[in-house]
Amino acid sequence: MAMAFHPLAASRVRLGPFFPAAAAAAPSASSVAAHHHPHHRRRFSAIVATAAASATAITEFDFKAYMGERAATVNRALDAAIPEGEPPKALHDAMRYALLAGGKRVRPALCLAACGVAGGREAWALAPAAAVEMVHTMSLVHDDLPCMDDDDLRRGKPTCHVVYGEPIAVLAGDALLSLAFHHMASIGSYPPDVDPDKHPARVVRAIGELARCIGSEGLVAGQVVDLEMTGTSEIVPLERLEYIHLHKTAALLEASVVIGAIIGGATDEQIERLRNYARSIGLLFQVVDDILDVTKSSEELGKTAGKDLASDKTTYPKLLGLDKSREFAEKLLSDATEQLAGFDKEKAAPLLHLAYYIAHRQN
Amino acid sequence: MAMAFHPLAASRVRLGPFFPAAAAAAPSASSVAAHHHPHHRRRFSAIVATAAASATAITEFDFKAYMGERAATVNRALDAAIPEGEPPKALHDAMRYALLAGGKRVRPALCLAACGVAGGREAWALAPAAAVEMVHTMSLVHDDLPCMDDDDLRRGKPTCHVVYGEPIAVLAGDALLSLAFHHMASIGSYPPDVDPDKHPARVVRAIGELARCIGSEGLVAGQVVDLEMTGTSEIVPLERLEYIHLHKTAALLEASVVIGAIIGGATDEQIERLRNYARSIGLLFQVVDDILDVTKSSEELGKTAGKDLASDKTTYPKLLGLDKSREFAEKLLSDATEQLAGFDKEKAAPLLHLAYYIAHRQN
Repeated sequence: MAMAFHPLAASRVRLGPFFPAAAAAAPSASSVAAHHHPHHRRRFSAIVATAAASATAITEFDFKAYMGERAATVNRALDAAIPEGEPPKALHDAMRYALLAGGKRVRPALCLAACGVAGGREAWALAPAAAVEMVHTMSLVHDDLPCMDDDDLRRGKPTCHVVYGEPIAVLAGDALLSLAFHHMASIGSYPPDVDPDKHPARVVRAIGELARCIGSEGLVAGQVVDLEMTGTSEIVPLERLEYIHLHKTAALLEASVVIGAIIGGATDEQIERLRNYARSIGLLFQVVDDILDVTKSSEELGKTAGKDLASDKTTYPKLLGLDKSREFAEKLLSDATEQLAGFDKEKAAPLLHLAYYIAHRQN
Repeated sequence: MAMAFHPLAASRVRLGPFFPAAAAAAPSASSVAAHHHPHHRRRFSAIVATAAASATAITEFDFKAYMGERAATVNRALDAAIPEGEPPKALHDAMRYALLAGGKRVRPALCLAACGVAGGREAWALAPAAAVEMVHTMSLVHDDLPCMDDDDLRRGKPTCHVVYGEPIAVLAGDALLSLAFHHMASIGSYPPDVDPDKHPARVVRAIGELARCIGSEGLVAGQVVDLEMTGTSEIVPLERLEYIHLHKTAALLEASVVIGAIIGGATDEQIERLRNYARSIGLLFQVVDDILDVTKSSEELGKTAGKDLASDKTTYPKLLGLDKSREFAEKLLSDATEQLAGFDKEKAAPLLHLAYYIAHRQN
């Protein structure tokens, strides 16, 4: 049942070809993304032409500024959410260390952007955006533990348990997880212009989405299966690899988008389209991660590179080869952007560019 | 600031005498509780006479049957909440092992009873009652970890990490925590007769209460300070001991009661009285736990007895002596039951008897 999370993805890979839609479309307009990645010009043009916005609208959207402003806003919210220096000091220090370590704040940006595309003010989703980052950080802190992935380096810095010890790292994770729900449920976390009649029901639904993506249908399930695979010399079948990624990575990206959409007042039909968008970019995120692990240095990534190879971990490049992995990434990008057709072009621009960014990020 | 959680308790102990109200009242009626504990007859009679119900109502209330029925109902809800045999199997097995290990289900009973005293149907609070037990279990699983309290025995059985290994125990705890919120937020968890207009706002408020009692204002904070104290030979001051217990134990008992009250439709003033009741029985719970640790065997407790003494842990008996600890327990019981005056006597009977039970349990 849980395997049906993204039922089409595995069969897509097996069936190929990977991006018929993009290949069939005519190369025409240019775009910011194409400009940054000339070898993808034709594919991006096709996606832009078929799915989202005029070339003019695309070039006018300043993605870097958008992300910078959202990251700054979310960082302020995260900073304000955890008291500094108050007892228990070690706990608050560890929570702040893990949460404010930088990071690109992709999940919060997705949450805010989805609220916007659904017709809400992005500020309505600031608390949920902070919450998804808290959940993400919690999963990193616990996954890095010595009894799990035993990782010493994260976002270019020593991991939480290296600095604060194992007990505090476990507890800081627990505290971040509960803080996420506290933040979501606090009236004070939302601006005064949210609809007081509809808001509580939306919050309950959004909390349900967040909770579902963490446990045995999400992050935790992915980590459990990932741990089972690690250290065995057998080759992991593609379905199993996809199960891990859909749970460990895609589930929270999906929740980020869907939560934003719910808070923004999306219809059920809009929520489902945005959910499909998010599932595709979720898997895309992990395929790109696997590619970066074999093509980039630790310095470029801010975490240990080549770790997947060294640990005999099954990855997309190992199963499909690097070229086919890149083609699969393109196919997922195309699937994602197709789901944005039908939304207001200007409002959909952030989600469109987030998809490009996830596909073509360099770390 | 967090120290102000139960600001009066520490000063009460220092100031003494411990139960002036009970001592001043005249011994009169008998009660089930007094019957079970003849040496407390006078005090209980006094409490019963001043605070809650006629002797008739008290004797008519079958506490054992009440608790047995609630535990059976909650156990069914918990059993249904986690699929058996579905992947990831190890995770679900570990969650079920920890959650369905027995236990007295005191927190769920408090939640259900508070819903009833607030005027709701107890069934409205079944999902929140299951949720507080999930949170409780999660905190036990994480606190028992080798890097924390390193406990091998819990509820008479090997602890979760002993059976399933450390990584699964960490992850099962995370999954139980998120499942608690998922359960609270799922519409399907509530019976159809809840008020559809008021229900979502109540659920949001209740989720906020649950989230607050877990993290750096609750369970986790208590565990952090407890860990800091463990292994040091210095005597822990009473304020610090109380901080630990109010966070590690009382916070979730308080949340259990308050959540039930909110779901049951309590007024703000009723919620505050029930909150005060819960804070008193929360501290009471821990004082009694400390007393039992020095007066009972491992077999009677279903967990390692004498552990506090062996580990040089500061306890109420160590700080105050056994007699003064028992007197403090009586004072807290009296404080708790006083808060129930003003509620419907029949509806308040379960909470009254839960207070007696917590004061006079033998394991």
